[in-house]
Amino acid sequence: MSSFTVEADRFQTPTPDHLEAGRVVIAVVDGEITGVERAGTEAARALAEASADHRVLGDNQVLTPGFIDLHLHAPQWQQNGTALDLPLDEWLFTYTFPLEASFADRAVAEAVYPDLVATLLGHGTTTAAYLSSVHDEATAILAETCVAQGQRAFVGRVAMDHPTGTPDFYRDHDAVSGIDASRRSITDIAAIDAGRGLVRPIITPRFAPACTDEMLAGLGRLAEETGTLVQTHCSESDWEHNYAFERFGTSDTEALDAFGLLREHTLLAHANHVRPSDIDLIAERGAVIAHCPISNAYFANAVLPLPDALARGARVGLATDIGAGVRVGVFQQIHDAVTFSRIRQDGVDARKDPDARGVPDAAIDTVTGFWLATAGAAEAAGLPVGLLEPGRRFDAVVFDLDAPGGVIRHLALDDEARRFEKLVRLAGPHDIAEVWVDGVSVHRR
Amino acid sequence: MSSFTVEADRFQTPTPDHLEAGRVVIAVVDGEITGVERAGTEAARALAEASADHRVLGDNQVLTPGFIDLHLHAPQWQQNGTALDLPLDEWLFTYTFPLEASFADRAVAEAVYPDLVATLLGHGTTTAAYLSSVHDEATAILAETCVAQGQRAFVGRVAMDHPTGTPDFYRDHDAVSGIDASRRSITDIAAIDAGRGLVRPIITPRFAPACTDEMLAGLGRLAEETGTLVQTHCSESDWEHNYAFERFGTSDTEALDAFGLLREHTLLAHANHVRPSDIDLIAERGAVIAHCPISNAYFANAVLPLPDALARGARVGLATDIGAGVRVGVFQQIHDAVTFSRIRQDGVDARKDPDARGVPDAAIDTVTGFWLATAGAAEAAGLPVGLLEPGRRFDAVVFDLDAPGGVIRHLALDDEARRFEKLVRLAGPHDIAEVWVDGVSVHRR
Repeated sequence: MSSFTVEADRFQTPTPDHLEAGRVVIAVVDGEITGVERAGTEAARALAEASADHRVLGDNQVLTPGFIDLHLHAPQWQQNGTALDLPLDEWLFTYTFPLEASFADRAVAEAVYPDLVATLLGHGTTTAAYLSSVHDEATAILAETCVAQGQRAFVGRVAMDHPTGTPDFYRDHDAVSGIDASRRSITDIAAIDAGRGLVRPIITPRFAPACTDEMLAGLGRLAEETGTLVQTHCSESDWEHNYAFERFGTSDTEALDAFGLLREHTLLAHANHVRPSDIDLIAERGAVIAHCPISNAYFANAVLPLPDALARGARVGLATDIGAGVRVGVFQQIHDAVTFSRIRQDGVDARKDPDARGVPDAAIDTVTGFWLATAGAAEAAGLPVGLLEPGRRFDAVVFDLDAPGGVIRHLALDDEARRFEKLVRLAGPHDIAEVWVDGVSVHRR
Repeated sequence: MSSFTVEADRFQTPTPDHLEAGRVVIAVVDGEITGVERAGTEAARALAEASADHRVLGDNQVLTPGFIDLHLHAPQWQQNGTALDLPLDEWLFTYTFPLEASFADRAVAEAVYPDLVATLLGHGTTTAAYLSSVHDEATAILAETCVAQGQRAFVGRVAMDHPTGTPDFYRDHDAVSGIDASRRSITDIAAIDAGRGLVRPIITPRFAPACTDEMLAGLGRLAEETGTLVQTHCSESDWEHNYAFERFGTSDTEALDAFGLLREHTLLAHANHVRPSDIDLIAERGAVIAHCPISNAYFANAVLPLPDALARGARVGLATDIGAGVRVGVFQQIHDAVTFSRIRQDGVDARKDPDARGVPDAAIDTVTGFWLATAGAAEAAGLPVGLLEPGRRFDAVVFDLDAPGGVIRHLALDDEARRFEKLVRLAGPHDIAEVWVDGVSVHRR
């Protein structure tokens, strides 16, 4: 049994509008948080005294929950942040699909994935929902890498068989073989995780345009049969949104539902163009919008109606959408999500009347943004993390406010809310001193 | 005489739409670039052989011009990136003015400014146009700090005397004393620079709402009399834009012009709400729009019509607007400028028809963004930097593509344009190996 206690200044957000700040003592046994007490109390002293391994973080450090990236493409790591000016289909066919296809060679996966996972851990991403490629071997290597480095992850073998929505050189031979491979990957990944509960399979129809009806329906049945989580893209752009109406006669959301893919905790990347009725359906099914701020700025033609989605009861979490991610850590996209929501509210064109320029009440603040990357994302994905409180797993990040070359050190600020805002907006990977997943230290600067 | 040559892979942008990439040998004598030759040529070999101090950068490093920040508030350094959700006037009166007022104590300036200047140099900002506070001493300390650390800078003692636009505890006693103090600061800063040509004074009426007519007119006369550059804010938000019409019966731009402040190289921060006729006037006078992407997202209620401003012949450069800057280095705001221009083009609200959503042809790419922070800003401010070519001063940044913890190392990309895009979007201060100003190494990681 591994157990320790840690005393630290903690920031966490139990709800989208509530920041909890203050010094606490946290007890961890075999990766689970078994107790949290306010520092300075008798109960906190008792926790610390009963501990054989008591650690105390300094005033210049802050402890937060680990950050959860609900959507990223592992085999796009090398191209991250490039060619973003292109239209999505050109970006995919010219750059992305050839790059993903190269993961047929296991040596490519062995070279790239350890670097990707280590880099994400170093950025504070303690949980990642990965789309892999169509390849069994590369997908297994990604899962093995997560286990080896101790990152909590969903790993999804991508299914894509549509004859016009995918290129000749990179697709499943047909729906049956794609469904079979998806089924195999569920077993493979369970074997790789070996009961740790750290790395889980996730059924991954790429997106409707890349999949035949047979594939979509088969994967829906596979999800039902195995109880495996699902991830895909939904109504990302005008093009994808309209495509669904043309092909299915319904919205993308409704089509996914009809194929049995809109399930509890299904991760829907983007969803910028969903209608209010789609949001209601997403909320009803308990599915999740994985909000990708930077990627959406380039490929989505609109900014997600975030407060509206939350008000309608939809689950929402944050995501990087690497390789369209630019900012590698989902923590770093919190500021972007906040900023873009503000641009959505204020609008872009000064020639228009202020009232006609933007969308009222569209802005979120850094507290909501932080929640989207921690407690909100954890609830969305059904994971017992996202808050440092009893009964959850200890996934946590230690920020060093005085890191060499850092810019968050001027925290001679008078209240916790401003300290928090400064941390969220300004901290980068070099300000992260240590990262914990499941009670294990997985990264130290 | 100090002289050296350096061989390196160089990225630079002579125009907003042209990236120059390739390996060169650059000769520097007493801070001036005296020769540039393509590596591998006979002329390059001759340059290197004639050099007593020849340096060769590796394939994993890139040399670029230094970056120019055309607008930031030095005494707001401690609050950078905080309370951005507030309306501008509340942000100013609750947080900013009290903080700036604390620089009446020279000990505050001595504690803060060396950290600010060192941090900016570490982020690759080789030139900064600073607004200081109203204080003679603190302003002198800022100028001395720039000289001591070797940063190229404009340092402007802020003038502000309006009885309602400024708080009791932080303003010039009256216009005459503000103009006198501005005049003194010109002499003081010239003495501190002592002929180096590195640090220059700049006349700084804060913005129209903070200054009486007498102050604005007096500073206009001071600029004309002394030939000193001017900086101020212009049509930042709906509020500031409308304020000018109410007070002056003209636009902010026209009012500044009437007071003699719209001069060659006058730096106008923000200018998001300027009308086409204002842009034409700015272009005619040779004045400059200092574009502050992140700050504008919070305080400006609109996104600058950047391609339109450039097409109309206005000078434009990039700026951080610290303390509303978040990203400390102007280099890091290039990606933001590009992203926000894309959001301006595509619009924000999916419920609107795509054609009615945004503003056509509003997007810029990373090449234009880079130009705005280098060659464009240099031309805008009238400085012989911004390109690594003969006759210019050697202000330069060395990026390390394999820096520890960096994310730009996957440059196994097939063309220079994508390598460049990845560098611009993803590089952070920890990827900067060395910074040069005026031929002197001023920062090494």
